[in-house]
Amino acid sequence: MSLLFLFSCCPPEVVTFPQNVEQVSEIAILCNDNEIPLIPFGSGTGLEGGINAVKGGVCVDLTHMNEILSVNPEDFDCTVQSGVTRMQLNNYLRDTGLWFPIDPGADASLCGMCSTSASGTNAVRYGTMRENVLNLEVVLADGRVINTAGKGRRTKKTSAGYNLTNLFVGSEGTLGIITKASLKLFGIPEATVSAVCHFPDVQGAVDTTVQVLQCGIPIARIEFLDEVSIDAVNKYSKMDMKVAPSLFLEFTGTPSSLDEQAALVADLCSMNNGSDFKWAKDPEERSHLWKARHDILYACMALKPGSKPYSTDVCVPVSKLPEIIKRSKEEITKAGVCGPIVGHVGDGNFHVFFPVDQNNPEELQKIQEVSKKMALMSLEMNGTCTGEHGIGQGKRELLVQEIGETGIQVMKQIKQTLDPKGIMNPAKVFY
Amino acid sequence: MSLLFLFSCCPPEVVTFPQNVEQVSEIAILCNDNEIPLIPFGSGTGLEGGINAVKGGVCVDLTHMNEILSVNPEDFDCTVQSGVTRMQLNNYLRDTGLWFPIDPGADASLCGMCSTSASGTNAVRYGTMRENVLNLEVVLADGRVINTAGKGRRTKKTSAGYNLTNLFVGSEGTLGIITKASLKLFGIPEATVSAVCHFPDVQGAVDTTVQVLQCGIPIARIEFLDEVSIDAVNKYSKMDMKVAPSLFLEFTGTPSSLDEQAALVADLCSMNNGSDFKWAKDPEERSHLWKARHDILYACMALKPGSKPYSTDVCVPVSKLPEIIKRSKEEITKAGVCGPIVGHVGDGNFHVFFPVDQNNPEELQKIQEVSKKMALMSLEMNGTCTGEHGIGQGKRELLVQEIGETGIQVMKQIKQTLDPKGIMNPAKVFY
Repeated sequence: MSLLFLFSCCPPEVVTFPQNVEQVSEIAILCNDNEIPLIPFGSGTGLEGGINAVKGGVCVDLTHMNEILSVNPEDFDCTVQSGVTRMQLNNYLRDTGLWFPIDPGADASLCGMCSTSASGTNAVRYGTMRENVLNLEVVLADGRVINTAGKGRRTKKTSAGYNLTNLFVGSEGTLGIITKASLKLFGIPEATVSAVCHFPDVQGAVDTTVQVLQCGIPIARIEFLDEVSIDAVNKYSKMDMKVAPSLFLEFTGTPSSLDEQAALVADLCSMNNGSDFKWAKDPEERSHLWKARHDILYACMALKPGSKPYSTDVCVPVSKLPEIIKRSKEEITKAGVCGPIVGHVGDGNFHVFFPVDQNNPEELQKIQEVSKKMALMSLEMNGTCTGEHGIGQGKRELLVQEIGETGIQVMKQIKQTLDPKGIMNPAKVFY
Repeated sequence: MSLLFLFSCCPPEVVTFPQNVEQVSEIAILCNDNEIPLIPFGSGTGLEGGINAVKGGVCVDLTHMNEILSVNPEDFDCTVQSGVTRMQLNNYLRDTGLWFPIDPGADASLCGMCSTSASGTNAVRYGTMRENVLNLEVVLADGRVINTAGKGRRTKKTSAGYNLTNLFVGSEGTLGIITKASLKLFGIPEATVSAVCHFPDVQGAVDTTVQVLQCGIPIARIEFLDEVSIDAVNKYSKMDMKVAPSLFLEFTGTPSSLDEQAALVADLCSMNNGSDFKWAKDPEERSHLWKARHDILYACMALKPGSKPYSTDVCVPVSKLPEIIKRSKEEITKAGVCGPIVGHVGDGNFHVFFPVDQNNPEELQKIQEVSKKMALMSLEMNGTCTGEHGIGQGKRELLVQEIGETGIQVMKQIKQTLDPKGIMNPAKVFY
């Protein structure tokens, strides 16, 4: 499903399918010499138009480079080529007792996830891509190949020189093409339980979240769904939850630590006027619950048959969530559009999944206006205009407001020195 | 205590004590216009000569900028000026139930810790500075002031543009002067217990560590001490531990989860032939144990009265630890020097604390040779030449071997574009 219909479709002139890093390097040299744009393609699941060939050029489709090169179970790391997807890796790891927890929802390619600095529901426990990449192989605009932490290095920490790894994570293909990534892995927790709790308002759900974090409870997931989302989930996934602002929670650990964590969290929920606290201990029930959460995009679209989804995300300090969610809902209502809200509330990050009639330009415009207002509200509240979707084409103007002119100058200086001809994924991140 | 005697002492020509960011910016403009080196000074606790004025110039002593600007308990963050130290912040936070866990041992300034990408005993649980800085205010060589994530922004995650924050973390003052940092805070865990266990060899201790991590036990600290270190600690801190390779462990959480974690770890220790497993549940006993661990530098020096300490650190994938520790001990023995080994074993990181007679140039040379051999062994094993001390003056040659020529070119391109006159902490990180 394409989420990119809001950006004008810009197909590349050529699509290449390199088989190895040497070929990627050759393509880069050829394009650089001839000043032809290069657009890396991972799995096409990004949400801000990152793979559009806005200025034409050559698409470097990395799906053929899909080998899992090594897994080191004792060292909790692995190395994969660019085309390997998140699910492919986790299926491969099944017998090791390990997993790679970063989960943006879609079955994205792991190097694409590096490129956009992806995260998702597990970030509250495991962090985002920024914290989980050990090393990257990158082909630069002029064809040079670097290993950001040095060839073959895969230590959990280092203080050797500039952190090039994290410069390329989140650079959205504008500084180079990621051809290989070494990633951290984690032990699969012994036991898991999930729960749902409903609140009279957003404040109760957020206060509960803050208190859970203050108690140092190692919560695995804590997801907020507003009443519109719950209604959508009930209808789509055949559930009968109370239609109210809700938290979906997941706890992992040893069985008895789970009981303890869970009892504490149940108390916190009820202190904040939460009700209908319901456990899902049984694996089937649990997987039904999280499948419902994962299917929310489809559930939101089903609210409006024939629609396509448009999703935006912002992230604020947790204490500002109640205010920004309240104000966002007011804007959604004022615009007369449908906009269910779903949030990775432990990180202060939330999404609106608008179901859009793409043949209705007026509705499209309203949704873009609401999205922009939300981003501006977030900036007002010390937040960011994009928690996990990146800048791409869609948020370039907002980036300038977020970082400030001088910070943008510095980013552009780095871009200029590494890609002087501006061939790497042009018209993304910056104008 | 100065640890820098191995580097020739290079005092600056001028020491300035700016009171605010505007003054730091004015100093930078003046120095840049006149091509005079600028050397930032935080607390002087770095170990690789980072504050030496190798080419003369102006020291920017940031100790007068020591205000804690804000603490947001609900958002688990704070913002501090450059001179604020780790202990100053944690004392200030005492009533909030929060703390900043990164602890390199010394009472370093927090912006200095940003600058060197510090970590320490808590990194296995909380990560290093790289994972815990939300935003930095930085004065560039030409006096421009940037906020790496945008002014006032303090979200737990963002995917907005290049990760400038992590470019400056670990850049050791060579790209700019950090004048303000926004940092993550954490809830103080409800309960804590510690334990010590002794092993017949390094392998047993490392295998235990790997299994603890595989089981997903949220261990708070797991520290390795070799038999030479244990002997030193016994003598200095008046303890009577078995003189053998040992693990010092710390667990945090709710009381019953601690019992469970601890029982599991005790089993793992005994499976790996660990013996004399001893609990320290009582706060006094626990603090005695960790004080002994923290005092290890002094304990090592007491092994050789009149000596000064020289410390080196490397970091490898955990599975390589037994081999590199064994080979390092062989080199230490062959050189005929005293070199106790202490490691943040959960991260694959370890130190040797050599007590050195600084009037004995032959001994000094031997120790430098052993240190270099250890770094080269680490590089052979996919490791890094510096886990947490940085490059400074001491490891510039090793950095080139670690990163490779092309990666170093990229680092130097970034340096060149942000500091074209090369005034920022010259002769550090690179030649």
